[in-house]
Amino acid sequence: MIIRPDPDAPGLTRAVTARDHTGAAQEIRVVEERPLTIYLNSQEIVTAMTIGDHPEWLAIGYLANQGMLLPEDQITGTDFDEDLETVVVRTARATNYEEKLKKKTRTSGCAVGTVFGDVMEGLEGLTLPATPVRTSDLYALAQKINTSPSLYLNAGAIHGTVLCKAAEPLVYMEDVGRHNAVDKIAGWMRTEGIDPADKLLYTTGRLTSEMVIKTALMGIPALASRSGFTAWGVELARQTGLTLIGRMRGQRFLCLSGEERLVYDADLASVPEENRKSRRKGAGDD
Amino acid sequence: MIIRPDPDAPGLTRAVTARDHTGAAQEIRVVEERPLTIYLNSQEIVTAMTIGDHPEWLAIGYLANQGMLLPEDQITGTDFDEDLETVVVRTARATNYEEKLKKKTRTSGCAVGTVFGDVMEGLEGLTLPATPVRTSDLYALAQKINTSPSLYLNAGAIHGTVLCKAAEPLVYMEDVGRHNAVDKIAGWMRTEGIDPADKLLYTTGRLTSEMVIKTALMGIPALASRSGFTAWGVELARQTGLTLIGRMRGQRFLCLSGEERLVYDADLASVPEENRKSRRKGAGDD
Repeated sequence: MIIRPDPDAPGLTRAVTARDHTGAAQEIRVVEERPLTIYLNSQEIVTAMTIGDHPEWLAIGYLANQGMLLPEDQITGTDFDEDLETVVVRTARATNYEEKLKKKTRTSGCAVGTVFGDVMEGLEGLTLPATPVRTSDLYALAQKINTSPSLYLNAGAIHGTVLCKAAEPLVYMEDVGRHNAVDKIAGWMRTEGIDPADKLLYTTGRLTSEMVIKTALMGIPALASRSGFTAWGVELARQTGLTLIGRMRGQRFLCLSGEERLVYDADLASVPEENRKSRRKGAGDD
Repeated sequence: MIIRPDPDAPGLTRAVTARDHTGAAQEIRVVEERPLTIYLNSQEIVTAMTIGDHPEWLAIGYLANQGMLLPEDQITGTDFDEDLETVVVRTARATNYEEKLKKKTRTSGCAVGTVFGDVMEGLEGLTLPATPVRTSDLYALAQKINTSPSLYLNAGAIHGTVLCKAAEPLVYMEDVGRHNAVDKIAGWMRTEGIDPADKLLYTTGRLTSEMVIKTALMGIPALASRSGFTAWGVELARQTGLTLIGRMRGQRFLCLSGEERLVYDADLASVPEENRKSRRKGAGDD
């Protein structure tokens, strides 16, 4: 992996004392959740509640996924101020999203300011590449992702999103807000100039309209999750030709869209059922 | 229960055809996710992505939890327009939240427009009642809630929040956005004039700052979940004296705040472990 979770990084989790069901004291670790206010040039865009790692990528990815940072925009600077809990993204182009910021959408998964009207336009005429999705790769990815060290396994209550290529997890981001994890990947991809055509995005979260829109706008042709679907998420995936795979559990999964990319090459007999340890319990869900 | 989920209600779920891991076609039900734009008098406040039931309660609860609808405000009308996907809450008092709407916070669990500064003020000097929380009631509630028919059990990918009194679930709301479920309960409580002092709120979602803030502002002294905690959620619960219980699984749970309300009266030997069916799998999580 190019970027993997750092479960022991200072500042991402905190030890707190709990009482268990017998009344006994028990020390556990919980994930941090702190505000980060994102500016585009001189304009305050949004305050995200985030675990706090990779603020620059979060800001760039968020702005790109909101259509406020255009593909052709030249980023002249990204300034993170830890004390002020702000990150400012500066562009050569003068920007003003006053009007856009007046519209506020609360999605099922949190994307303040996403204006669906605009986003739909962004999706029109979008064609995602016909990159095959091998079931053998899906199973290998799930196994690698579920068993690799993570903040989730340490502290729970956190979501993960992983940028993958074939059977390899490349970039594994976690955040208290699952959309932050996706945005951090988008920010990294834009910064590094990564080609989305041969990638797959894996998320621990639900496959809602918001997740489908972000994945399609990022140009990634496949989105997979251990969680379930919403009707609009399925509808948008079918409209954009995105391969949408959910409810991945051991051998099982359901493909709701773009099944023409699927290559059923896995030997099911060789796919192990999930063990309890790697199964995500409620602690990290939602 | 006064209000229970209606899993078979038309318009809340949709049948879609999926391909399973063997390539076989399979019909499943997925939950709807549709926009609802909330107005306070003539001002557009937010567009929520919701499953679509109880739009009036969602709007009233959202506005109350945002501090835009004051306890003393007289609601003169609530107009839901299904075609326009809008709901307008009208008050005797003239309202204008132009300034407040300029601030946008994306929380880990979605609360567009929640201005933490204002909210903190709202929490200052707040004292929650010393209502005891019996462990026998907690176990009874978890068992009743996990086994009662729900959209979650039918279609997954949805969150539940339940207003409870002692061992009785009173109002069980579900939504694709877990904060919508809480807001629908807040709207129902305000409309019906329900006393929060002897209640407990149960959620399937994580115990983030946002969930703790909403529960405390609603005047409910205890919040329980099968999911985990964030550090700020714990901090706010301790500041406000809210009893915060998470990771409820069969006999086990962890209390991170307000343990003085806990009464350990359950006979643990009589508490069954969760059966597979009632265990929330990833499908409904996140």
